[in-house]
Amino acid sequence: MSVDLLVKKIKEKGNPSVAGLDPKVEYVPMFIREKAYKEYGKSLRGAAEAIWEYNKGLIDALCDVVPAVKPQSAFYEMYGLPGEEVLHRTIAYAKEKGLYVILDVKRNDIGSTAEAYSKAYLGTVDIDGEECEPCGVDCVTVNAYLGTDGVKPFIDDCKKYDKAIFALAKTSNPSSGELQDLMSGDKHIYEKMAEMIDKWNADTIGKSGYGAVGAVVGATYPEQAEVLRKLMTKSYFLVPGYGAQGGGAMGVKPCFNDDGLGAIVNSSRGIICAYKKGDWKEEQFAEAARAEAIRMREDLVSVI
Amino acid sequence: MSVDLLVKKIKEKGNPSVAGLDPKVEYVPMFIREKAYKEYGKSLRGAAEAIWEYNKGLIDALCDVVPAVKPQSAFYEMYGLPGEEVLHRTIAYAKEKGLYVILDVKRNDIGSTAEAYSKAYLGTVDIDGEECEPCGVDCVTVNAYLGTDGVKPFIDDCKKYDKAIFALAKTSNPSSGELQDLMSGDKHIYEKMAEMIDKWNADTIGKSGYGAVGAVVGATYPEQAEVLRKLMTKSYFLVPGYGAQGGGAMGVKPCFNDDGLGAIVNSSRGIICAYKKGDWKEEQFAEAARAEAIRMREDLVSVI
Repeated sequence: MSVDLLVKKIKEKGNPSVAGLDPKVEYVPMFIREKAYKEYGKSLRGAAEAIWEYNKGLIDALCDVVPAVKPQSAFYEMYGLPGEEVLHRTIAYAKEKGLYVILDVKRNDIGSTAEAYSKAYLGTVDIDGEECEPCGVDCVTVNAYLGTDGVKPFIDDCKKYDKAIFALAKTSNPSSGELQDLMSGDKHIYEKMAEMIDKWNADTIGKSGYGAVGAVVGATYPEQAEVLRKLMTKSYFLVPGYGAQGGGAMGVKPCFNDDGLGAIVNSSRGIICAYKKGDWKEEQFAEAARAEAIRMREDLVSVI
Repeated sequence: MSVDLLVKKIKEKGNPSVAGLDPKVEYVPMFIREKAYKEYGKSLRGAAEAIWEYNKGLIDALCDVVPAVKPQSAFYEMYGLPGEEVLHRTIAYAKEKGLYVILDVKRNDIGSTAEAYSKAYLGTVDIDGEECEPCGVDCVTVNAYLGTDGVKPFIDDCKKYDKAIFALAKTSNPSSGELQDLMSGDKHIYEKMAEMIDKWNADTIGKSGYGAVGAVVGATYPEQAEVLRKLMTKSYFLVPGYGAQGGGAMGVKPCFNDDGLGAIVNSSRGIICAYKKGDWKEEQFAEAARAEAIRMREDLVSVI
C-alpha cells in the first residue's frame, strides 16, 4: 500500500511533515515574476511560468528535508490551462526528486463520476485498448459527503495501483463546525465520518500497520483530533492548519499515535513564503523555505 | 443575478432541463474515435479530440432545444491535460451558441483556497494589475461540508461577476443517505444543509424571485425533495438522476415550485448516448440526442 511508501519516506527523512505548494502568483519573488512577464506577458501563461520557476526552486531546496509535497489544485486551476499544465510539470518534477506527492483536490461525486476522478489522478484510463496515465500522483484528498459509493472507486484504485487517499473528517477552517460538529445521537458528524473512514480503511492495511484510507484532521482543533485518533487508529492523518492557520506543534500532537507515526503535518505559506519574514532577500526564497522546513521538523519531532 | 439569466433561457426554450456533457471516450461513436486516433493516436490527446468532435455535434444539435449544458469536469480531467483543454474549448463553444454553462466541479475547501477555486471558474484573477479570466462559466456546483467560509468566496463572486452556484444538499446516489440522512435533533443532515443554503441565498435574490445559491437535489429521492422544496423556496434546484439513474418525471415534480419554475433537471447519458438505443445509426448520434432532449422536455412539461 502506498501509505507504506509514505511511512518509509517519513522515517528516512525523520520528518512527519509535508510542504504545501499553494503558489499564488503574488507569493512568487518579484525577480522571478518579472522574468516570466518579460517572456510571456502579464497573462495566465506568464503567471504559471513564474509559479513553475518558484516551485522548481522550492522543490530543489526541500527535497532532502521533507518526505512529501502537497500541491493544492485550486492554486493551479486559478491560472487556467497554463496553471493546469504547470501543476502537471510540478508533479512530475517532485516525483523525479523522490518526493511523495499528495494532490489536494478534495474531489467528490456519485460512483461513476468518482471513478473518473479516481482514474484521473490515481489510475489509468483505457483508450480503446491503450492504458494511459492522465496525471499519476501517490495520493489525493477526497470529500466523502456522498457516502460509500462516492469513495469506493478511489479505494479500489488504491488497491489496484498502490495509492492512498485522505478523506475530510474535521477540517481546519473556522466554520468547519457548522455541519461537522452537529450532533447525531451521541456523536458529532465528524465522528460519524471517522467511523466510515475507519470501516473503508479496514481491508487496506499495509505492512506499516496503516491503511490506504487516511483522514484530514485540522491542527486547529486538537481536542477533536484526540477523539478522532482513537476512532481511526490505523488511518494516517493529513493535518492542515499548522503555522499560518495558527496551529502549533502542541496542537498537532494528538494527531500522532504512540509510535510517533500516524500523521503528516502540512505547512504551505509558512514554508513557501518564509522569505517574507525576517531578514531574507527575495533571491533567498528557497533557502528560507528550507530553513523553515527544518525548523518545523525540529518543532514536530520535539513533541512526538 | 445569473440565475435570472438561467430562468430567462428556461422560459425562452420552454424547457427546464440541462444536457449533461459527460463524455467518456467509449460513448463517442466509433467513426469519430477512429478519425481522431488516426490523427492523434490512441492517446489522451486522441481521446480528447474525439470528445471534442462529439461535444461539438451534440451542442449544435441541442442548442435550440435546451437552455443549458452541464459539463462534468471529472470526464475531462480523466483525459489529462488534453481533456482539460477540450473542456475549455467545449465551454467556449457552448457559450458562443447561447447556452448557459453549469460546470459540475463540486469544488470545496477552506476560505482562501475556496477563493482560488471561485476565481478559477466564476471570476477573474489579478496578475500584477492585469485581470485575466481563467475559465469563465455561468455557474458551478460546490460541496459545502466545510461550512460558510468555504462557500462565501463563491457567493461574493456570484454578486461581483453575476454568477450562480448549486451546493450539494441531497445527492442522487444510492449511498447518499449514509451521511446526509443522519438525524441531528429532529432534522436530517440534508435539511440542516438546506437551512444553510437558504440563509446563504437570502441576500442574492434576483428579479426572477430566485437567488444565486441553488441546491443539488437528486431526482431519485422525491420525498426528500418535497421537504427540501419547502426549506429553500427561493433556491433553484439542479436535479440529477433523471433517466439513466432511474428517476422519472413524476420523481422530479416535487423539485418544482407552483410557478413551474425552481428546478432544472439534468440528463447526461440519457441524452448523449441516446443513439445507442433504438434504431439509430452511429452517424445519427446528434439527431438522437436532440430527439431525446425533446422527448424529455415534453415529459417534464407534462408534469409541471
